[in-house]
Amino acid sequence: MAINSARLQQTLQKLAEYGALPDGGTTRLTYSREFMQAQEYLRQEMEQAGMTTEIDAAGNLIGTLRGKQPQLPAVMSGSHLDTVPQGGNFDGVLGIAAALEVARSWQEDGYMPQRSLQVIATAEEEGTAFGMACFGVRVRSGEFKGRQADEIKCTSRAGTLADCLREAGLPQDALSSAACGFGNLAAFVELHIEQGAELDEQEREVGIVTHIVGYDRLHITFCGEANHAGTTAMHRRRDAAAAGAEVIIAVRDLARQDRRFVATVGKFTVEPNVPNIVPGRVSLCVETRSYDDAILQEVRGQVLRIIEQAAAANGVIWQTDGDFHVSAVPLSERLVTTASEEAERLHLDYLALPSWAGHDTQIFAGAGIPAVMLFVPSVRGISHAAAEYSTPENIFRCSCLLDAVLQRLTNEI
Amino acid sequence: MAINSARLQQTLQKLAEYGALPDGGTTRLTYSREFMQAQEYLRQEMEQAGMTTEIDAAGNLIGTLRGKQPQLPAVMSGSHLDTVPQGGNFDGVLGIAAALEVARSWQEDGYMPQRSLQVIATAEEEGTAFGMACFGVRVRSGEFKGRQADEIKCTSRAGTLADCLREAGLPQDALSSAACGFGNLAAFVELHIEQGAELDEQEREVGIVTHIVGYDRLHITFCGEANHAGTTAMHRRRDAAAAGAEVIIAVRDLARQDRRFVATVGKFTVEPNVPNIVPGRVSLCVETRSYDDAILQEVRGQVLRIIEQAAAANGVIWQTDGDFHVSAVPLSERLVTTASEEAERLHLDYLALPSWAGHDTQIFAGAGIPAVMLFVPSVRGISHAAAEYSTPENIFRCSCLLDAVLQRLTNEI
Repeated sequence: MAINSARLQQTLQKLAEYGALPDGGTTRLTYSREFMQAQEYLRQEMEQAGMTTEIDAAGNLIGTLRGKQPQLPAVMSGSHLDTVPQGGNFDGVLGIAAALEVARSWQEDGYMPQRSLQVIATAEEEGTAFGMACFGVRVRSGEFKGRQADEIKCTSRAGTLADCLREAGLPQDALSSAACGFGNLAAFVELHIEQGAELDEQEREVGIVTHIVGYDRLHITFCGEANHAGTTAMHRRRDAAAAGAEVIIAVRDLARQDRRFVATVGKFTVEPNVPNIVPGRVSLCVETRSYDDAILQEVRGQVLRIIEQAAAANGVIWQTDGDFHVSAVPLSERLVTTASEEAERLHLDYLALPSWAGHDTQIFAGAGIPAVMLFVPSVRGISHAAAEYSTPENIFRCSCLLDAVLQRLTNEI
Repeated sequence: MAINSARLQQTLQKLAEYGALPDGGTTRLTYSREFMQAQEYLRQEMEQAGMTTEIDAAGNLIGTLRGKQPQLPAVMSGSHLDTVPQGGNFDGVLGIAAALEVARSWQEDGYMPQRSLQVIATAEEEGTAFGMACFGVRVRSGEFKGRQADEIKCTSRAGTLADCLREAGLPQDALSSAACGFGNLAAFVELHIEQGAELDEQEREVGIVTHIVGYDRLHITFCGEANHAGTTAMHRRRDAAAAGAEVIIAVRDLARQDRRFVATVGKFTVEPNVPNIVPGRVSLCVETRSYDDAILQEVRGQVLRIIEQAAAANGVIWQTDGDFHVSAVPLSERLVTTASEEAERLHLDYLALPSWAGHDTQIFAGAGIPAVMLFVPSVRGISHAAAEYSTPENIFRCSCLLDAVLQRLTNEI
């Protein structure tokens, strides 16, 4: 009973064909033709691996490999089938292919654990279509149970969720009928590419994720005075862009000194934004991410002091335009220990680390399901691009770890 | 023979009615109905002051008060009739009203100098309509002689110069028929509000302009790497906005130390400009202004070093997207001396200073006409806004100086 590396690579290659782009990479948006075709391919593969399959009304595909005690809560593994526009060939699908390969290898050898194993291919994790990440899993968790599909507007095209479901041939009652909750699960394990360069730089073979980071977004506007770029002497200026620039630099320098968080000014909009007028207004967003909400809280205070100082030093005023907080999610300590023990037993060079990006796992963990993630190193940390790559060797190693962890979890009673 | 302050204020009030806005200030765009009505009002006032009038095909109005030796080159004074959108009630029109008042006072007393005095109300100085400042005067200078009016596109509305001329009832052959050149002028004197706060801060009564500043615009792009704002550790980022922010700060600090120039980053555009992506690209423009081209040259070298350092410090590359240079224009030393002597004779507290904004005068000076400007203090330096204001006392003082200078110049043979 062993992971078949060649077959796993073939599955990946096959999946990459659904939405393949001429210059490499993939665009496979949720509910698109390519998405539905890839889902059908996976459904058939699951059936061939002896699984019963179900597609819920939100477009999540679930295959079940029956255990000896199917009345017990199952163990689930998998990841998302959708990509970002012009995404890579590993993000999401690798976790589905690896879980499918585990199921295949078990069925091949007639191995039957105590609990059932479920493999999931989720929909709309990337948040491309409805302005919200992990959408398919959120629907399944019941987050939208009281709402109607024609209320949820598309952000990537005209129309609503109801239109998308209709075109994909799915029933219209996704938000209630798919909302089965996670009550029937004993654990969730997601294998995924790291999408960062930590493992690759440290030349580690696998990662075991301890937390999924939360983030804090602070939207602010500096209001100075738009003025003539010639006649306004330097000492009389109230330059909103200069205040904003001081925030960019100070926030970057703060985060460079402290590896517990990252901070980004990704949005920075200047008005009137012409060469010969001193900028009167700048809107910007400071985003900080950390694996610990207490750190985010502490950093927010420092960011506010930076903003106040930048405003005062440039004679401008500032206001908040809103803030947005997503809590950090600690994963199951018990499952992290299980995964670490199995990695040691397999002589894998692993690193326990936080995930700096969001994943479906955080919705499961947030709902109280014991959950953990396994990371495959991303070469040079590249993701969401055609150049996204993980080596077959590391994919194999991490899939073997997944196999071992799922064996442990499906037999724990 | 004396300037009538009350009549001058009435002229200003009357002109402010053409394009008056409900909350104060004026919008009087070139060739608009309000513009053509204001021009007609001025034409009638000129005729009443004993002047012959002409409107050239570009929409410049010229009144001529005949001198004893009308065959000699005339002395011209005036300013622009157009405003920026939501402009003030002094910018431009004050220089026309003051020159008209000089002509009125001369005609009232039967005063006839050796040379003719011409009063001009120019069109499209603000550059609102065709993306180019001093447009009317440039046409008159012959700058566009070989071109057609239907080639010059509007930047403020659909259509071309030809459409604007047609709607204003002006002939279509502006670019050639208005291009009479300045060969028939002995001197040009423009009275204008300062639009800066130098005279007001120093509590001076008038300004005598020695130079009109030139400027240097350097458009550059920083190219880094757009990347995930969570998974990209701080030390791996190639943040184009951080490089751009360092330029904003360093350029500002450079200019704060040196009163010979001002520098502005007014345009700063971030891509992709979303909160959760490290900016991959920033396009910005550094504009420097000085009264001396050698200073602009020296500063450009310093700005380029700042850009190189910012790029290197943030792991990004940079490219120039073009540069644009307008030379500084020294005004006539002889006329500056004449104006200074007259200011002393009138016991005016004057300051010789550069103009940090462009004016029609630079087109006359650039064509070799001896030219000078007289500045009226702008309260708190506000301009291009309803709050633009100059006191009647300072307007009167500067108009008396204009009167004295024009008397000197029209009698020099």
